[in-house]
Amino acid sequence: MRIDRLRCAAVAVVLGVCTPSAFCQDVIVEKRIFELPSYSTVGNDTIKNLKIGWEAAGTLNADKSNAILITHFFSGTSHAFGKYSAGDNAAGYWDSIIGPGKPIDTNKYYVVSSDTLVNLNANAPNVVTTGPATIDPDTGKPYGMRFPVVGIKDFVRVQKALIDSLGVRKLKAVVGASMGGLQAYEWAASYPEMVERIVPVVATPAPDLYLIAWLGAWAAPVVLDPRWNGGDYYGKEPPLDGLKTAFRVATLQAFHYEWADKTFRPGPAETDKDPRKALANKFKVEAELDNLTARRAATVDANQFLYLVKANQLASADISRIKAPTLAITTPGDAIFYPARVEQAVAQLKANGTEVELAQVTGPNGHWNGVFGISQVGEKIGAFLQ
Amino acid sequence: MRIDRLRCAAVAVVLGVCTPSAFCQDVIVEKRIFELPSYSTVGNDTIKNLKIGWEAAGTLNADKSNAILITHFFSGTSHAFGKYSAGDNAAGYWDSIIGPGKPIDTNKYYVVSSDTLVNLNANAPNVVTTGPATIDPDTGKPYGMRFPVVGIKDFVRVQKALIDSLGVRKLKAVVGASMGGLQAYEWAASYPEMVERIVPVVATPAPDLYLIAWLGAWAAPVVLDPRWNGGDYYGKEPPLDGLKTAFRVATLQAFHYEWADKTFRPGPAETDKDPRKALANKFKVEAELDNLTARRAATVDANQFLYLVKANQLASADISRIKAPTLAITTPGDAIFYPARVEQAVAQLKANGTEVELAQVTGPNGHWNGVFGISQVGEKIGAFLQ
Repeated sequence: MRIDRLRCAAVAVVLGVCTPSAFCQDVIVEKRIFELPSYSTVGNDTIKNLKIGWEAAGTLNADKSNAILITHFFSGTSHAFGKYSAGDNAAGYWDSIIGPGKPIDTNKYYVVSSDTLVNLNANAPNVVTTGPATIDPDTGKPYGMRFPVVGIKDFVRVQKALIDSLGVRKLKAVVGASMGGLQAYEWAASYPEMVERIVPVVATPAPDLYLIAWLGAWAAPVVLDPRWNGGDYYGKEPPLDGLKTAFRVATLQAFHYEWADKTFRPGPAETDKDPRKALANKFKVEAELDNLTARRAATVDANQFLYLVKANQLASADISRIKAPTLAITTPGDAIFYPARVEQAVAQLKANGTEVELAQVTGPNGHWNGVFGISQVGEKIGAFLQ
Repeated sequence: MRIDRLRCAAVAVVLGVCTPSAFCQDVIVEKRIFELPSYSTVGNDTIKNLKIGWEAAGTLNADKSNAILITHFFSGTSHAFGKYSAGDNAAGYWDSIIGPGKPIDTNKYYVVSSDTLVNLNANAPNVVTTGPATIDPDTGKPYGMRFPVVGIKDFVRVQKALIDSLGVRKLKAVVGASMGGLQAYEWAASYPEMVERIVPVVATPAPDLYLIAWLGAWAAPVVLDPRWNGGDYYGKEPPLDGLKTAFRVATLQAFHYEWADKTFRPGPAETDKDPRKALANKFKVEAELDNLTARRAATVDANQFLYLVKANQLASADISRIKAPTLAITTPGDAIFYPARVEQAVAQLKANGTEVELAQVTGPNGHWNGVFGISQVGEKIGAFLQ
């Protein structure tokens, strides 16, 4: 694959942008593992044998000054760019802006992305995380509810240890969408000397009371499922119905009615089962959403979902400490991080003397425009990084 | 109370509006019961001994041409105006615009409001409804899941029978918020010859696919609660946790972050239980929302909740049949009936030659502005009725 990557880079250099050819899409990334023998949480608990996965593209330059960190969203992983193999159907979620010749140009930058602690997708291949689904080395069993609570600040501290391990003293930028944006703000607040700039996409420095309540509403159905069993379901049937119910709400909230218009079809779920004739007869849109959430829930650990909700509720980057020039991206129709809320944070940052630019992506996908529509602001992000 | 009402009316006539004095607020209404020995649903099922409650204020004139029907929202009842007794703490939900000298002037109009079928508040005093919580006369036990599915069109058909029973051949107007607006549109579509005008507030003629999916997401936690037991919980513990979880989502969606700002307080639910220290340690906002939903769930029947969700999903007033002049009210920040969706419906009505006016209420309460903020358009509604 090395040859393809070089050819891709060459093409990109000639054209000034990456061509949409197969060559350019074939940046191959490899999952690596970062380990800490012991990590002390913000809440003063200890996690032994902590592991998170990470991926990288590009080359770290001699003075290690060209690193960019990508932080992932709630349901995301470190797989922000490239493919794991040439045969992969899909590339990482922000592959449209990260790669050779792309706005976050891996010919210039060394781009790192890591799985968070308590990552949702504990049961997915290529995700390495530590959380309640992890085997507790002291007992040989999954931690379950004995895993300590962690917050976004813990995610950032662990990433800091990873970045330190690479010998990088200063990041060109931290860029992330949604929960990734919470992390970007927290990076700037926790390590102002290490972060040259941040690009928080569809995110504020902290959730407002409304979002804290919504996150609690996402979590509630999991706990309601009798299979959750106080978090002790390992080796038994997991609480998939609770998770699916949770994802129904989270999915609808993170999308938009325009997305529903193009995704779902009207009518009954089964042609011979009129919803008017029995309570159990569903609409097609309900069945389609159910399929979508079932696919989603299959690789998710329910306890890690609950812990991730808590981590987001606990996010609280101290705006007064954020000095890094900021490019904040909003999207209209976002029902998680409302544009007006982002604008309020931007106004506070500006009042503190921080340089902030505001840009917008549009599309039919609500909050998800921040992931799916990112190429709309690719050029702006590229220029901001210079 | 008759004297107070006359004095109130006199004051209102003199001033041209109702004064905020205790007199004016003391319109006393009485719950009455309308019965149908047998009702055949849109789905061709039969409901025996159907009963719904209704309330009225004002006096029906000699030619019975001054009646206005108020249709209620999802969690509402017929109690739109007046008090049940002078000692009541609160009046009906739209008392600010309905009463002597008020925009919907009970000195001029005979104002009727009825409880719907499968009303949510089956366990509340002063609510009379027929649904799965009702005793099936054939078995002497609650219908449960054997109750036939009903839709908004059934609500309207039953109201039509009530209106017929009063000898009213034509309604001055049908006015309702949210689900009440679905009913207003359905009235105009089902009985164009009987409806002079409609005022659908924060509503469209039918839910879009997104709202059908959301309604399904509201219902899902109830079914997930093991106490729901396939709908057979009468005489046992009802599925209150499922209902509370459902109301958490429905409540947040029907309000707005500005409402959360003024309603909830930051910090931990219990001062000595830091949310950072244990997954079970909640934020104050979660506990406050929990209290709110617990109060709400106390008078609600879980099966009627499921049936009411279905009734709303089935709403589908035929726009091409709506000829009644329409005053449609929207509110920005409405996450149930989005203003843009109402505007689309209004455009379709106009394209069909129907006279439509559009007005707006504002406030911090999202969708609920249509109930709490209605006095902002009181004058406009009053003028529209003339």
